[in-house]
Amino acid sequence: MASATVETRVRFSETDAMGVTHHANYLAWFEMARVQLLDQLGCPYRDLEAAGYLLPVLAAGLEYLRPTRFDDRVSVTVRLELPAKARLRLTYEVGVGGEVLARGFTEHAFVNREFKPVRPPEAFAAALARHGHGK
Amino acid sequence: MASATVETRVRFSETDAMGVTHHANYLAWFEMARVQLLDQLGCPYRDLEAAGYLLPVLAAGLEYLRPTRFDDRVSVTVRLELPAKARLRLTYEVGVGGEVLARGFTEHAFVNREFKPVRPPEAFAAALARHGHGK
Amino acid sequence: MASATVETRVRFSETDAMGVTHHANYLAWFEMARVQLLDQLGCPYRDLEAAGYLLPVLAAGLEYLRPTRFDDRVSVTVRLELPAKARLRLTYEVGVGGEVLARGFTEHAFVNREFKPVRPPEAFAAALARHGHGK
Amino acid sequence: MASATVETRVRFSETDAMGVTHHANYLAWFEMARVQLLDQLGCPYRDLEAAGYLLPVLAAGLEYLRPTRFDDRVSVTVRLELPAKARLRLTYEVGVGGEVLARGFTEHAFVNREFKPVRPPEAFAAALARHGHGK
Repeated sequence: MASATVETRVRFSETDAMGVTHHANYLAWFEMARVQLLDQLGCPYRDLEAAGYLLPVLAAGLEYLRPTRFDDRVSVTVRLELPAKARLRLTYEVGVGGEVLARGFTEHAFVNREFKPVRPPEAFAAALARHGHGK
Repeated sequence: MASATVETRVRFSETDAMGVTHHANYLAWFEMARVQLLDQLGCPYRDLEAAGYLLPVLAAGLEYLRPTRFDDRVSVTVRLELPAKARLRLTYEVGVGGEVLARGFTEHAFVNREFKPVRPPEAFAAALARHGHGK
Repeated sequence: MASATVETRVRFSETDAMGVTHHANYLAWFEMARVQLLDQLGCPYRDLEAAGYLLPVLAAGLEYLRPTRFDDRVSVTVRLELPAKARLRLTYEVGVGGEVLARGFTEHAFVNREFKPVRPPEAFAAALARHGHGK
Repeated sequence: MASATVETRVRFSETDAMGVTHHANYLAWFEMARVQLLDQLGCPYRDLEAAGYLLPVLAAGLEYLRPTRFDDRVSVTVRLELPAKARLRLTYEVGVGGEVLARGFTEHAFVNREFKPVRPPEAFAAALARHGHGK
């Protein structure tokens, strides 16, 4: 199963007046992990985009178990769920020091620049197959 | 049932390289609607915060039906779901020109500055009761 | 002299762990005022963009006199500086309740989608002339 | 002279509809470099904050020479300007692949939680002295 992990340090600009990370930033962190996963699959998002593919978020869910704070070393792990159907489903775990503090998912579909659904690029389908995600 | 609507115009800073609103901004828009709802309930978040109450997001979900774009006049409507239990549940609709383009929810609980769960402030409970949200 | 004012309410997502508005958001507010100014000049940024013009920020400066806070009603006034030369220069004042709390400027030039400098669109030049900004 | 460098990869959430990094994010990157500099000086911002010190931005300036884009590996170098007076002045360079694409500065002063100016913490003054920044 394809997965990837990125590390980030909570930026001061990501905090809010509650003294913790503002909850919207977790979606940006999920995105960072997703970009890393695509890199590892050999289909960098940068290349997909250059080839005219977009991979917008169609749905997202987040569960915040405990807050993260400025300067926390956060790791975000993303996993591609099986089976990869029309909608790509990814799940995420956000941890600090080995403890899971948040969880979430996103769902995606490939579209073209006009936001019309398109078949996944060949390179992506091949990468999935290599990682045991059948068609 | 308590509800509120805010209007906003998509900022250029809220767009991304897909040419649409970056999906994380919807959580900030939900928050704006939530602040407006608390105002209408007679419990401004500003006052709650001054009294030592925080109302963090414990869970959130978003469904993006169609993208919004720079300069779109967006309206965000929030509704307080019945019954209001330990967790406060709010649902949201994001529309442009009367068409619903996104939907979502957030769940919250009152905590103190140390993020320990606390009973909702009296003013809030009273406001809910006035709006037909019994205990 | 061309000028425009927008009003905004400080979003909770715009605050940081100092309990005030994070300083980077002022650039987004400046941008909102700039968009409004272009509207008033009859050259909406949306239309400029559709016609292939971009107006990136080449330089910016900010002076923060006193912080703004969550829920503050902020007004941002932008003025087009005279004379409008190759670089467009705009200045900004951020106020709450009539008191100026921050000031700044941005400088811009029209470029095409490849970020190559181009002459300002005719509609823009004409709008400037109407507002007493000679060539 | 005290200096520090951080590396970051441009996040998709940091781009805008011009297809480049939105200009406001450079202030967040400057902040990351600043945090790193304080770490290296032995005065982590986290500790300063815990001790009741804030170090808000009083002024900032930015010059954007060429845009950065999604996925660019950006390095941000911050330098403490001499002499460190009442206002701390820091300068920044943003580079990709060894080329400087943006420059800027920020000015700061230590304040307490009520935003009243205070003398810099002893640890900070001592750190400056160690790095050749006299009083």
